[in-house]
Amino acid sequence: MSVTVIDGDARVRVRYAETDQMGVVYHANYFIWFDIGRLEKIRSMGCEYKSMEAEGLMIAVVKAKARYQAPARYDDDLVVRTEVSEVRGSIIRFCYVVEKTEDGSVLCTGETVHVVVGRDMQRRRLPERYASIFRAALKQQTTAI
Amino acid sequence: MSVTVIDGDARVRVRYAETDQMGVVYHANYFIWFDIGRLEKIRSMGCEYKSMEAEGLMIAVVKAKARYQAPARYDDDLVVRTEVSEVRGSIIRFCYVVEKTEDGSVLCTGETVHVVVGRDMQRRRLPERYASIFRAALKQQTTAI
Amino acid sequence: MSVTVIDGDARVRVRYAETDQMGVVYHANYFIWFDIGRLEKIRSMGCEYKSMEAEGLMIAVVKAKARYQAPARYDDDLVVRTEVSEVRGSIIRFCYVVEKTEDGSVLCTGETVHVVVGRDMQRRRLPERYASIFRAALKQQTTAI
Amino acid sequence: MSVTVIDGDARVRVRYAETDQMGVVYHANYFIWFDIGRLEKIRSMGCEYKSMEAEGLMIAVVKAKARYQAPARYDDDLVVRTEVSEVRGSIIRFCYVVEKTEDGSVLCTGETVHVVVGRDMQRRRLPERYASIFRAALKQQTTAI
Repeated sequence: MSVTVIDGDARVRVRYAETDQMGVVYHANYFIWFDIGRLEKIRSMGCEYKSMEAEGLMIAVVKAKARYQAPARYDDDLVVRTEVSEVRGSIIRFCYVVEKTEDGSVLCTGETVHVVVGRDMQRRRLPERYASIFRAALKQQTTAI
Repeated sequence: MSVTVIDGDARVRVRYAETDQMGVVYHANYFIWFDIGRLEKIRSMGCEYKSMEAEGLMIAVVKAKARYQAPARYDDDLVVRTEVSEVRGSIIRFCYVVEKTEDGSVLCTGETVHVVVGRDMQRRRLPERYASIFRAALKQQTTAI
Repeated sequence: MSVTVIDGDARVRVRYAETDQMGVVYHANYFIWFDIGRLEKIRSMGCEYKSMEAEGLMIAVVKAKARYQAPARYDDDLVVRTEVSEVRGSIIRFCYVVEKTEDGSVLCTGETVHVVVGRDMQRRRLPERYASIFRAALKQQTTAI
Repeated sequence: MSVTVIDGDARVRVRYAETDQMGVVYHANYFIWFDIGRLEKIRSMGCEYKSMEAEGLMIAVVKAKARYQAPARYDDDLVVRTEVSEVRGSIIRFCYVVEKTEDGSVLCTGETVHVVVGRDMQRRRLPERYASIFRAALKQQTTAI
């Protein structure tokens, strides 16, 4: 393995089911991988999305985009690196890079924007105990880059 | 179109996303089509699964099987024919045939067994107002075959 | 039905499999619906994507984005309206609107950018006989809006 | 972790995308996990399904079945244990157990039957160099149980 996998990165092995008849991964699957990356990132920050949902806090997707640079293929070993890029009121923004573990080549980059909603699907502020954790992740990243 | 589509049959057009790198439909997708067939069958009997769920009645899958006879391909126009094959206490059994609309060739047959559960995921009897409808569908079919 | 469905629009009935535990459609599925819309649009222009692929012409996705405005739910009847928004060299761009058939409310809008590739996954120009058809679709739309 | 994961077992972390509005994993996904288990088992036997396909040897599914005993939920850590249960001519049969890693509870068992086909989708015998490996896996298992 030639890439460094750090805490908060997610590993994904491409499933046969994720390929299509073009012989490469069907493009919608990358959004599922972003989701895995996002939840792993949140876990590494010391939160559990599962517990947030149990409290009635859901992070609904309002925007999603991906830029595909090279195709992923069946059985490829990938790493999804996620960063928190914005935390403001009820808005949280994440960005993603999907790399091939073997050589570190970038296959896809993307971004998702979320709003925090309650069980009634109405927008609500991210409670301060979570917001502070998300802002800390944001700061750390800003400093690092 | 050389096959007759009757009330309770479901039409499915194969999606590109449903293919895999073998160039045919990935086998797990047939269970999604059985599901579409089952819900269409229930609708044709005068019930709405949506309303059943809203009442807290869910039909959980406990067994599922499929026998694949010929591959479905992207853009194929298919018909899923569903029959109620057993209704007993909290158990409901359905069987399925997936045919190519173009020539009536059978691509896949299958069966699913379900138990009626409540919101707590505990088994419960199918209420009589539904049971009588399901039994009627069963009788009709037995007579027809 | 309160919306007008025209040639080139695709109809989608939300599948149970497309929901997630939030009780609404999982966001990645909209990209599958965009795909259905795109292929239906191409068909309405007098082409068949199937035949293009058989000739070794594939339309690979290089960018995809969606903006989610309201959630789709199980069994919703939807219409996917697709427009060709750019045709230039080997680049084709489509935009999408997903509406609820019942009331015409917009659930999601999106855009995908594609490059034409050959079987070797290398970029190639869209052959003129297709390019002229795609440009015609583009012109028609520009005039209409 | 209270279960022993051995060579040939596959680990699966339940994805959010795999849940449905019943709040549990949608049943068709278990067939995708069986697939992951099968390919991991084959790898542990010293083969690579990828290489087999590159040689034009495909293992098409002809029968699949599952028996669901308890629901899997988002973020559950699972192990898929796969055994080769039959190797005869062009037929290969696998059986599966999906367990929760946390407590070893069985969520689902299943079986798939496959035929070896060539690129033309016509049935062919499994070449002896593979057949001997598959038979060895079979014998080992028979001895073990």
